[in-house]
Amino acid sequence: MKVIPLGTSSGKPTLKRNVSATAIAREGEWLLMDCGEATQIQIARAGLSPNRLSAIFITHLHGDHFNGLSGLLSTMGLDRRERELTLIGPPGMSEYLSTLARLKILFVNYPLEVREFTSPATGAHAGRLIKIEEGRPGASPPSKKEDDFARDIFFSGERAVPEDDGLTVVYETADYVVQSRPLDHRLFALGYRIEERPRPGRFNLGRARELGIPEGPMFSRLQSGQDVKLEDGRVIRPSDVLGPPRMGKSVAYCTDTRPCPSAVRLGRSVDLLIHEATYTKDLEEEARQYGHSTAAQAARIALEAGARRLLITHFSTRFPDPAPLLEEACAIFPDTLLAQDLMEVEA
Amino acid sequence: MKVIPLGTSSGKPTLKRNVSATAIAREGEWLLMDCGEATQIQIARAGLSPNRLSAIFITHLHGDHFNGLSGLLSTMGLDRRERELTLIGPPGMSEYLSTLARLKILFVNYPLEVREFTSPATGAHAGRLIKIEEGRPGASPPSKKEDDFARDIFFSGERAVPEDDGLTVVYETADYVVQSRPLDHRLFALGYRIEERPRPGRFNLGRARELGIPEGPMFSRLQSGQDVKLEDGRVIRPSDVLGPPRMGKSVAYCTDTRPCPSAVRLGRSVDLLIHEATYTKDLEEEARQYGHSTAAQAARIALEAGARRLLITHFSTRFPDPAPLLEEACAIFPDTLLAQDLMEVEA
Repeated sequence: MKVIPLGTSSGKPTLKRNVSATAIAREGEWLLMDCGEATQIQIARAGLSPNRLSAIFITHLHGDHFNGLSGLLSTMGLDRRERELTLIGPPGMSEYLSTLARLKILFVNYPLEVREFTSPATGAHAGRLIKIEEGRPGASPPSKKEDDFARDIFFSGERAVPEDDGLTVVYETADYVVQSRPLDHRLFALGYRIEERPRPGRFNLGRARELGIPEGPMFSRLQSGQDVKLEDGRVIRPSDVLGPPRMGKSVAYCTDTRPCPSAVRLGRSVDLLIHEATYTKDLEEEARQYGHSTAAQAARIALEAGARRLLITHFSTRFPDPAPLLEEACAIFPDTLLAQDLMEVEA
Repeated sequence: MKVIPLGTSSGKPTLKRNVSATAIAREGEWLLMDCGEATQIQIARAGLSPNRLSAIFITHLHGDHFNGLSGLLSTMGLDRRERELTLIGPPGMSEYLSTLARLKILFVNYPLEVREFTSPATGAHAGRLIKIEEGRPGASPPSKKEDDFARDIFFSGERAVPEDDGLTVVYETADYVVQSRPLDHRLFALGYRIEERPRPGRFNLGRARELGIPEGPMFSRLQSGQDVKLEDGRVIRPSDVLGPPRMGKSVAYCTDTRPCPSAVRLGRSVDLLIHEATYTKDLEEEARQYGHSTAAQAARIALEAGARRLLITHFSTRFPDPAPLLEEACAIFPDTLLAQDLMEVEA
């Protein structure tokens, strides 16, 4: 997986750093974490194709993580996207989108599924939700009215994510799974963990030939985990020709948050922990008050989680040069990287 | 007045052109026409101070003219703006802002007055409005709650703008007046005209000395239009020492719109008519269908209005090089300029 920070500034953009958004790219597709204002411009600068975007994950509804959503969704509409898109995040997104659709601010004419997750403790959100459209898109013939700005948005329900040790699966494919858990911010916020499923081991061609397996369909069946029977009656097992299963990579995304057990749980043994570091440690009290972390706190989370590397981001604009944040984190967790807009980090 | 296009692309941004927004700067303050996504970044690039922004005028609620509002308003909140700001535009803005405030997306802690204008024909908007706060800000002591994200927004009512020959004053100061009238788009849209009030003529110091007027308070009184009486009994009139009144400059802003009488009325004899030119004339039918103008149509509006100069903007992304749009307009109205992001045009 390749991580591309698209915005690394906290609260408001600067001329060097946009507000929060991070792309996580895999083979042929990518995921978006948060969508601050102007994210669609950063996507273009990074050379990412909006058509290959599979899902958007929003941590919380503060504008600097969310204000770019309307523009990105509408631009994909103008560009005649046809692929379904999934939008995952806290409650309130469907109310927001339904207001925008009603006022004609939004233009979405492709299937958009909105999944909202809350926590048992903040269930107060329930009941405020608005169903933009009942059922699955395509169930009724699409209308062709000129002002039909958002006909394919549908809300697929609200589920709670646990606040105990568990993680909740919020999105999955054959290749990876995304789990979530609430963080500790001053507004309900979700952290995410993307984990690739293990892949079969490498196929040992030399060994297969030694065993006299004919090239062709039997190779595929062994690679997909099935036994094959040769003409001479011998049964070959996948483990005879495949190396050990290859572990997938994993990335966790924890912002905005105070240091909390959820971040440790989400970041457990990940290849890359993306954690906010809004302030330096001399501003720890301010960090606590506004629901943020210092660079030292982010580093201690990475240490406790056993993460392989830490990428700090979401820097207060009071640090035009964030070098002190990196220095502070590295003193505790040496494998720390400082996020820059549009850099690329391999997980 | 100095006009600074901040975004000149139609529908979606490109890497060279942001979406719609235009600054109109005067002595010590400036006005903003439209506020597409990333306008706050363009404002920073242009070196404009958000604290000197007096009022925002929205033409219509399509996202490419409106999606930057939430971020700009919130950034001024983070930057501890104290000055009142006025927001003028079509109905729906207060509903939008109240939804954002409820969801904590928006952060406005300075006085923000929202004025909505509709037309008699589209009065269907009335009744959908939500009062974010009753009365003037400051009437009740400000609360200090941590999550008090938008305490000072108030909605000062909805008024109709005429569709006949008249213009409606939507904003005014001692120095200038802003008038509005509905355009002809596929969504209710307002055009604007900013007109400086005439200033007194230049004070002729030599003539004043010849007349024996003592330097001091009498000079000020003459400059402000009052007669003065000298010690010898002679009465001096302002016209004795002042040149002819100096006409103010005027600018009209007409986008998005089909060519229409409103644009001619708003642009009558202006120093600079800013008019959309989304397409070339071979796409006139597409322009009509989507509520836009061709460059040739914009030029004919400028000609009919007797505008001194025309600035065309809002170019479809199908024109990476908009030179054909300029050529088409200049053939009809030679004093046409092609808008570029961050250029400066004196009215």
